[in-house]
Amino acid sequence: VISSFDVAALAAIVGSGNVEHRAALAARDPGVDQENLGADVRVRPADTAEVAAVLRYCNERGIPVVPHGGRTGLSGGARSHRGGIVLSVERLDAIESLDPLSRTAVVGAGVTLARLAEAAGAHALSVGTDLGARDSATLGGMVSTNAGGIGAFRHGTVRERVLGLEAVLADGSIVSELGRVLKRNEGYGVERLLIGAEGTLGVITRVSLALVAADGPGATALVAVDSLVQAVSVADRLRRSTNATAIELMSGNHAAAVCRSLGYTDLAPMAAHPWLLLLEVGADDATAAESALVGFLEPLLEDATVADAAIAQNASQRDAMWRVREDWAVDRERPGGLWFDVSVPLSELSHYVDVVQTRVSAHDPTLGVYIIGHLGDGNLHVTINAPTPITERYATIAPLVTEGLAECGGSWSAEHGIGIEKKSTLERLAGATKQRLMRALKDVYDPNGILNPGKVVPG
Amino acid sequence: VISSFDVAALAAIVGSGNVEHRAALAARDPGVDQENLGADVRVRPADTAEVAAVLRYCNERGIPVVPHGGRTGLSGGARSHRGGIVLSVERLDAIESLDPLSRTAVVGAGVTLARLAEAAGAHALSVGTDLGARDSATLGGMVSTNAGGIGAFRHGTVRERVLGLEAVLADGSIVSELGRVLKRNEGYGVERLLIGAEGTLGVITRVSLALVAADGPGATALVAVDSLVQAVSVADRLRRSTNATAIELMSGNHAAAVCRSLGYTDLAPMAAHPWLLLLEVGADDATAAESALVGFLEPLLEDATVADAAIAQNASQRDAMWRVREDWAVDRERPGGLWFDVSVPLSELSHYVDVVQTRVSAHDPTLGVYIIGHLGDGNLHVTINAPTPITERYATIAPLVTEGLAECGGSWSAEHGIGIEKKSTLERLAGATKQRLMRALKDVYDPNGILNPGKVVPG
Repeated sequence: VISSFDVAALAAIVGSGNVEHRAALAARDPGVDQENLGADVRVRPADTAEVAAVLRYCNERGIPVVPHGGRTGLSGGARSHRGGIVLSVERLDAIESLDPLSRTAVVGAGVTLARLAEAAGAHALSVGTDLGARDSATLGGMVSTNAGGIGAFRHGTVRERVLGLEAVLADGSIVSELGRVLKRNEGYGVERLLIGAEGTLGVITRVSLALVAADGPGATALVAVDSLVQAVSVADRLRRSTNATAIELMSGNHAAAVCRSLGYTDLAPMAAHPWLLLLEVGADDATAAESALVGFLEPLLEDATVADAAIAQNASQRDAMWRVREDWAVDRERPGGLWFDVSVPLSELSHYVDVVQTRVSAHDPTLGVYIIGHLGDGNLHVTINAPTPITERYATIAPLVTEGLAECGGSWSAEHGIGIEKKSTLERLAGATKQRLMRALKDVYDPNGILNPGKVVPG
Repeated sequence: VISSFDVAALAAIVGSGNVEHRAALAARDPGVDQENLGADVRVRPADTAEVAAVLRYCNERGIPVVPHGGRTGLSGGARSHRGGIVLSVERLDAIESLDPLSRTAVVGAGVTLARLAEAAGAHALSVGTDLGARDSATLGGMVSTNAGGIGAFRHGTVRERVLGLEAVLADGSIVSELGRVLKRNEGYGVERLLIGAEGTLGVITRVSLALVAADGPGATALVAVDSLVQAVSVADRLRRSTNATAIELMSGNHAAAVCRSLGYTDLAPMAAHPWLLLLEVGADDATAAESALVGFLEPLLEDATVADAAIAQNASQRDAMWRVREDWAVDRERPGGLWFDVSVPLSELSHYVDVVQTRVSAHDPTLGVYIIGHLGDGNLHVTINAPTPITERYATIAPLVTEGLAECGGSWSAEHGIGIEKKSTLERLAGATKQRLMRALKDVYDPNGILNPGKVVPG
């Protein structure tokens, strides 16, 4: 437990109004993970200098520091414990520059994705990254987890959007590499190593991002297919022949659960097919977008590549289609399931899913397998559950999902990060040289091990 | 000097036919830099295992190793010396996979850009990166230098194209992270640190790349404008309203030198304007591309944003326009100049060039300033020369070009890397924390300092 001496020292840095104690934290929404606010105190520095002073103090005193953005992470990377502090970047919330000609934005780590998206949209620009948690996810957190999301098949993950960043290392020293240009080779990317490091190498305080041209108005379709081979073919043809802005996938049993839960009787018949796609295309105006989508789907319906299709006629139909993709009805129906986050090259995707389904049902035929994902980049979220919770069975069930992924060029950790949840998988599957390098890099950046201890880095 | 004992040991690894001695090296084209082939021997391993054996041997014996790709680097990063060896990756030349559905290629480090571009083109795909040295530049070298080139404003630098890579560290241990998916967060990017490290942290042996859809046929225009503000405005409007595939810039004095040197009397009048642009747009067919370009330029000519414009009517006119951009007539006319490679945010570009021109002429009015560059991403190549060579004046002239770049979000090292040439600038301009981290990372990856010693890493 942190002493009152420590709390006073932290309050002297950030102001006592920006130090929250356990009682206040207990009243706060912890975010996705119940253990996020388990620390003794949460401190909210105002700027990079205060972040540096907090870290310098904690580094000298050996106090664990868990950096927090929007608390929307899904892998336990924001969990905190007694004896340590949470360092929130929520006050680093300035959109410092937004340059339409250079197509760049420089923002504080605490700016939410939704706020930056709105500011960019005013100049007909977009962040290039979008995800369900847009209202709470912060740019600092998204860079720290190398977030992926819906648009990655067009504009890359957040890593590909980052032009530069500023960060504070464990000892309070500052690395400030805030260039606003694409071509910048000024020696090793010492700051880029923090992208995806989940706050274990430093605390990101500011980010410079490359923006992209905004999409015009879009048209949305829900499409049913009878095999994953057909789903992949539809995805490939869509991106070749249209300006595709979303190519999302759902297994029929996932869509059926949502339709049941939300009373979507009109969409329920489509969920009887094994796979559904949510497709969006953008164009200069809504009419052109809809006719592009109709023109794309008609021949596919005729040659039976597509079994059924519906085009959203208004915003409420569009929202319903996205709910079919994003709602967590499966977890409400059968809580205590296991969730996996994998990537598979499109050419291997159908075979991979066949193999996983066969393996899981051979292991225990009472298990259910539900799949949603970003088909455009081969990122699948696989839920495995049963009528009763199976959380304790992670170690035996995980290999059924991860085995063979590396060999086919896929990944056992796509867009949600390692956190705590996938650390055992990393220790099992990452090569010995990689694990040795990870530990050595951690020692360089954070020799006392105060930054997000216990996360990401193999033991 | 390496002993005959060492040469025999290396020959035992790679075969004596793959060890070249100084006499043979002296007869070989050294590439861009005369000192590239200064080593005692050049060894050409056949595969990753042989690369590992060579490095393990050299690491134990303390023998410097300079990795070589196509020897087209412009910053001296491939220079080698007595007492060391050159390790060429030219035999790692397999296109191991090219997957049109997943849009990925896995290639040996020695595959040239032109070969991969041709193989991808057969599937209507493109590497997403193109540069003048395409016939000799290797993918391994391009990843090691994080190459930029013509298409970067659309598809990023090579860093943004790399899905994974395999490399051998100084001690012979292998890091193999050859995923073929975009979303892959499996712990620290220990292998990605080698992107842009110019062979100082390890030898890249294989690369996994994301491909992009190929452009359709294109149309090309040479355009004259009377100010950089207008040039930037044309660039911005082109990328907003067309499928722009190239937005290149030349100063009038550069273009005039090329027209003089190559006898381009028809293009010479355009070179009387202070700035020229080379613009390309792609479309489904050549007619559509040309009418897009005509439709774009007509209103700009009418409102005098553009002073003059010519559209290439055939391949030979197109080639001539590209020669105006790419020919090195300036260096033939006045050899011994200094070349700088900077990036500037588009919104700052005109002001930056004004300031540099003013500074240079205040410093010495006999100096000439010539500028070419990739305007789409703000990357300028600035040549400063005089009637007689000024190579020895680098230390006094460099600050005239680099000062203020960091403050406006630009970069003093855009796409050619640090090598030897920019190392003093790195030591002058990079922050102390960054320099400390660079040295610490070098120690982690190459504790004996055998890999490309003397390059990149500050002293």
